[in-house]
Amino acid sequence: MPQLSVRAHRLPPSPIRKLAGYAEAAKKRGVKVYHLNIGQPDVETPPEFFEAIQRADLRVLAYSPSAGYPGLLQEIANYYGRLGQELSTSNIIVTTGASEALTFAFAAILNAGDEVIVPEPYYANYSSFSLAKDATVVPITTRIEDGFALPEMSAFEERITPRTKAILICNPGNPTGVLYPRAALEELRKICLKHDLFLIADEVYREFVYDGAEHHSTLELADMEQHTIVVDSISKRFSACGARIGCVISRNKELMEAIMKMAQARLSPPTLGQIGAEAVYKMPPDYYQVVAREYARRRDVLVEELSKLEGVVCPPITGAFYAMVRLPVEDTDVFCQWLLEEFQHEGATVMLAPGSGFYATPGLGRDEARIAYVLKSDDLRAAVRCLGAALQRANSLKAIGSTT
Amino acid sequence: MPQLSVRAHRLPPSPIRKLAGYAEAAKKRGVKVYHLNIGQPDVETPPEFFEAIQRADLRVLAYSPSAGYPGLLQEIANYYGRLGQELSTSNIIVTTGASEALTFAFAAILNAGDEVIVPEPYYANYSSFSLAKDATVVPITTRIEDGFALPEMSAFEERITPRTKAILICNPGNPTGVLYPRAALEELRKICLKHDLFLIADEVYREFVYDGAEHHSTLELADMEQHTIVVDSISKRFSACGARIGCVISRNKELMEAIMKMAQARLSPPTLGQIGAEAVYKMPPDYYQVVAREYARRRDVLVEELSKLEGVVCPPITGAFYAMVRLPVEDTDVFCQWLLEEFQHEGATVMLAPGSGFYATPGLGRDEARIAYVLKSDDLRAAVRCLGAALQRANSLKAIGSTT
Repeated sequence: MPQLSVRAHRLPPSPIRKLAGYAEAAKKRGVKVYHLNIGQPDVETPPEFFEAIQRADLRVLAYSPSAGYPGLLQEIANYYGRLGQELSTSNIIVTTGASEALTFAFAAILNAGDEVIVPEPYYANYSSFSLAKDATVVPITTRIEDGFALPEMSAFEERITPRTKAILICNPGNPTGVLYPRAALEELRKICLKHDLFLIADEVYREFVYDGAEHHSTLELADMEQHTIVVDSISKRFSACGARIGCVISRNKELMEAIMKMAQARLSPPTLGQIGAEAVYKMPPDYYQVVAREYARRRDVLVEELSKLEGVVCPPITGAFYAMVRLPVEDTDVFCQWLLEEFQHEGATVMLAPGSGFYATPGLGRDEARIAYVLKSDDLRAAVRCLGAALQRANSLKAIGSTT
Repeated sequence: MPQLSVRAHRLPPSPIRKLAGYAEAAKKRGVKVYHLNIGQPDVETPPEFFEAIQRADLRVLAYSPSAGYPGLLQEIANYYGRLGQELSTSNIIVTTGASEALTFAFAAILNAGDEVIVPEPYYANYSSFSLAKDATVVPITTRIEDGFALPEMSAFEERITPRTKAILICNPGNPTGVLYPRAALEELRKICLKHDLFLIADEVYREFVYDGAEHHSTLELADMEQHTIVVDSISKRFSACGARIGCVISRNKELMEAIMKMAQARLSPPTLGQIGAEAVYKMPPDYYQVVAREYARRRDVLVEELSKLEGVVCPPITGAFYAMVRLPVEDTDVFCQWLLEEFQHEGATVMLAPGSGFYATPGLGRDEARIAYVLKSDDLRAAVRCLGAALQRANSLKAIGSTT
């Protein structure tokens, strides 16, 4: 048979979805599975989303313009205007989720063999998207002990080579739940200007920051018009993951022209999702506050319940809806599979995303797991208690986690 | 500023969309523009599509499984079953349009520098998708004089090198409107087996064949389980271009596993489009007949009206809803722009896709243009008459087409 590409063999399985088969099997056995493994919120999509689609009363479901409907582009520009960022609609191209936005950004800047520096742990699919361009993620490790704060400028500079094209951050962070302060962004700005690197920022969790903290966008950074690329999405912001509507934003005209050609090649982003997106971007600012408050409550429940579990380390969570926690087990890949295959507590078990998949450095994250606190408080509390029971049972079995 | 990738500079603008700015300007001047340039049908999307979405009455617009909803996968398998092709749902992955299906197929098989042989003229975006993998389209020219029939096996073999990984066909063809007979597919089969090449077939226009002809899918070809990859979409079949729902089909297990990892990385195809797609795939076979009859009527109108225009060559059209025609002008790039910028006839003008963009060989197609007969018969007739008036006027201006 003909050979597949080298990249086909190198593509990693999704650490978030790779346990899916075991979860299905558990459900078939009648076990309730609390999904803390995936960023699929149970928050209702605003009804305005569906109402707009119904009101549109389409007869022909046609392509939209390749860059997205002008009305949606204008609403996105208005949204950024309210955040203090003046954007023209030509600085924005609507994409099929943030995934396509990042794919376009990578395609526009990365040649084969190029490198992108990414603080780890990071959203695992960044590796897949860079691999799709035969480029490499160069990780810079952040540590749970430091609350996953960005390392010093010198640590970045050590990793810069002639092949380095960009630094990619997620702010606030998936999977870390960490919001970068303005000072950290200023450091990144200095590095990018000094070494002439693109700064790509995944800011899809921007509205989910807690304890009165303020999110600073990379778009605020001075003299970075040619360097800054923002990847955004309505998936989490409006709990509309299935709409597949995101956007890529940059003031770099040449870059946006290149991305526009890619956008034309794939014709258009989904029409229905865009109609809904335009409607929800019109919602008043208190929508964001209500949702952020709900996630803050869930975060509090998570932290409170995790604090009762011996040996579990949960760093401060200041944004997004994830926590990268340390568990008192040797290998969370084994533990998370065991949770689904063998464990149950009062008819239920918990699904987590094992930590190793979020690190590019081999061996890191083996005692960590990502928890997405996307469930209602009661379910979340029950899920963490279930995790506690599992840790006790695993401890009493001793060998779990050391059997590999 | 940091440098863009090499591919960013090499990406061609879309030949189908590059005149869009001139069309907008014409409309602003109050000129009616007949769009024969883009495959956006005016046929109604089946109401079942929208009814299914309304009936789903979603509260949370969630991700679907990465491979698509099981119900949709089953309906696609049933559809292929009715065509005589036994497929399991694991042979199918739902994609964001045929564009993503082809992107995935290319990513799974092409290394940088690899080559894909494609009969030209071809759908221009094939070049963009191969360029995205730093691979190259190697064209094999088909000629309007031969009705764009496939050349002999020897012509293919002359172009095969150690870097050749696949042959890609569109059947029936965009932009040619040509349906390949079973015998031509058998020839391709022989070549692919002999040289161990993938055979990728874009069969999105499968249901649009005329004059009692029968479409043969590459899935029918014997002993090609490891080689055949089909790219499909609901966009044209159900006039649901904006749904962005397609699929990639193969019985090659290793290939589908690689594509599954790419599908997981981009999370899921659009949820609403899938709900609609599942509903329309349930429609009875006579739906396809009704739509095909409508396009056959339009084809007849097009051929009849074009035959009245002196110097216009329209090859036999046996499928899809395009015609690649020869016009009595020197340069259709200049002519098509002139149509939008300067010409009008009774307040209207016509937009065509210039032929050169569908050829990879420089200089070819300069006197050709693609006509998409996606308008109602009356509009189509008026559009072709408008084209006739334009050709007369251009002829009287003489210099048009030779001014470049």
